[in-house]
Amino acid sequence: MRSLVECVPNFSEARRPEVIAAIVAAIESESRVRVLDISSDVDHNRTVVTLVGEAEGVEAAAFAGIAKAAELIDMNQHQGVHPCLGAADVVPFVPVRETTMADCVSMARRLSERVGRELNLPVYLYAAAALRPERENLENIRRGPEAYQMLKKEIAADPQRAPDFGPKQVGPAGAVIIGARQFLIAYNLYLNTDDVQIAKKVAQAVRYSSGGLRYVKALGLLVNGQAQVSLNLTDFTQTPVARVVESVRREAARYGASITRSELVGLIPQAALIEAARWYLQLDNLEMNHILENRLDEGNKE
Amino acid sequence: MRSLVECVPNFSEARRPEVIAAIVAAIESESRVRVLDISSDVDHNRTVVTLVGEAEGVEAAAFAGIAKAAELIDMNQHQGVHPCLGAADVVPFVPVRETTMADCVSMARRLSERVGRELNLPVYLYAAAALRPERENLENIRRGPEAYQMLKKEIAADPQRAPDFGPKQVGPAGAVIIGARQFLIAYNLYLNTDDVQIAKKVAQAVRYSSGGLRYVKALGLLVNGQAQVSLNLTDFTQTPVARVVESVRREAARYGASITRSELVGLIPQAALIEAARWYLQLDNLEMNHILENRLDEGNKE
Repeated sequence: MRSLVECVPNFSEARRPEVIAAIVAAIESESRVRVLDISSDVDHNRTVVTLVGEAEGVEAAAFAGIAKAAELIDMNQHQGVHPCLGAADVVPFVPVRETTMADCVSMARRLSERVGRELNLPVYLYAAAALRPERENLENIRRGPEAYQMLKKEIAADPQRAPDFGPKQVGPAGAVIIGARQFLIAYNLYLNTDDVQIAKKVAQAVRYSSGGLRYVKALGLLVNGQAQVSLNLTDFTQTPVARVVESVRREAARYGASITRSELVGLIPQAALIEAARWYLQLDNLEMNHILENRLDEGNKE
Repeated sequence: MRSLVECVPNFSEARRPEVIAAIVAAIESESRVRVLDISSDVDHNRTVVTLVGEAEGVEAAAFAGIAKAAELIDMNQHQGVHPCLGAADVVPFVPVRETTMADCVSMARRLSERVGRELNLPVYLYAAAALRPERENLENIRRGPEAYQMLKKEIAADPQRAPDFGPKQVGPAGAVIIGARQFLIAYNLYLNTDDVQIAKKVAQAVRYSSGGLRYVKALGLLVNGQAQVSLNLTDFTQTPVARVVESVRREAARYGASITRSELVGLIPQAALIEAARWYLQLDNLEMNHILENRLDEGNKE
């Protein structure tokens, strides 16, 4: 099997299609990567590109995308409700297949050094690639709707705001936040009730921020008249999907409600589903090479 | 993704390693296939070869294996406790990836015609490839320990025994039974009891032969002092793993027992695990292209 890394750069532009096209073209000029998805939100004035490939190609493509965005986007002109620090605002690497988090951390740090040196942009490392513990949380680096204007004023004066790479100075392209994180699974569970309060109580019970599971963010919503627990699973390798679903099921039962169905928003790694099957089937000794297809793919190496 | 077919030919030889080596070499001379496993049982005097590849290569490799076995194995000299009709005794094709059961049926019938014509061996089609409904069950084609000797006497005289292809005459290589079937999952569930009677009652409740689930064979055993329900799932696409496990769980609970763990014997197709995850997580709308890796593999087609 080929080793694969995902990269999900967020660019501060959604209203000028020609700018987005130019950034995507710069990314795709790196032949070893494949762009899986491009999502633009006009209110946020922000575009999220999902690309995958072998590590070296993805790192080069991310650099090309950052360079093109820095060239074409002027943060002084930017308007949008989503907080942002720069033209290429956040660039996370995600391990997908035969790649570790440590590999992605190395990629993030190497890319950060290059962006600082070659593009002369301030760079902050976040999440698993953070060099300062307080920078693990993105929100500690990029605060509020006026994040770019605030950084301009503070970067030289406040040692807490010093970038990890690049100049202590903010130009029109702003700063870049580069990091490594696990694949994010966006997952919704529907309850057999139209009482949104139950979904809110369940969400509060299972999410990290109010005492719940470590790698879970959750909201209670009403969707088409049905209570929905909307979840972000930020590290399924440590807080697996089955545990989250069973926690929601138990909390909902506390209020006399049950789960009618679930849904994915976007993609899920195969490993997350295999782990759920292993848990529910109690297949303690399941190994990846027990799966027929994995045996077949081994053959491609020969 | 490459389309893939599995073939699991059973040969009536386990005691002469040079004969097995020659058969495997004949199969592997077809470069488009990969041999995943070779299992010999000396008491049965029988060797099971598991090979995979694209349809055309697998069909050619199966022919090469049958031809070599017919050349080297004399059924008049064969001794072993497992019933068998021929040197290459049973040759099933199994759809694995991007291949349907109908494709495998076509392969089985085309191979049967060729074996009858070029090797002058009588061929019976079984399972999904059967041309007569009574031949869907292998046991109706190959009966008892003296199957080969009986067929010799009956093939010309009894119209019920007429082969689907090839001569109404049995030589030293015997007959070949060729067919198409689903992947067989061998799956054991352990109960928290040393009472084998509970495992036997659960097995009886869930298996097809005594009124249970259609594509399930089951036995109750005692393994290392723990009651075990030993299962063969003969078509996981119609009787899925989750339904079998939950049936076993419910029947065991009837006797106050529960499942402590499960285990696979051999391989399981990815689709069987994904389906189990979908069922337990209630992910009604899960599509194969929601799985990240499947998106990546699409890229290989370009």
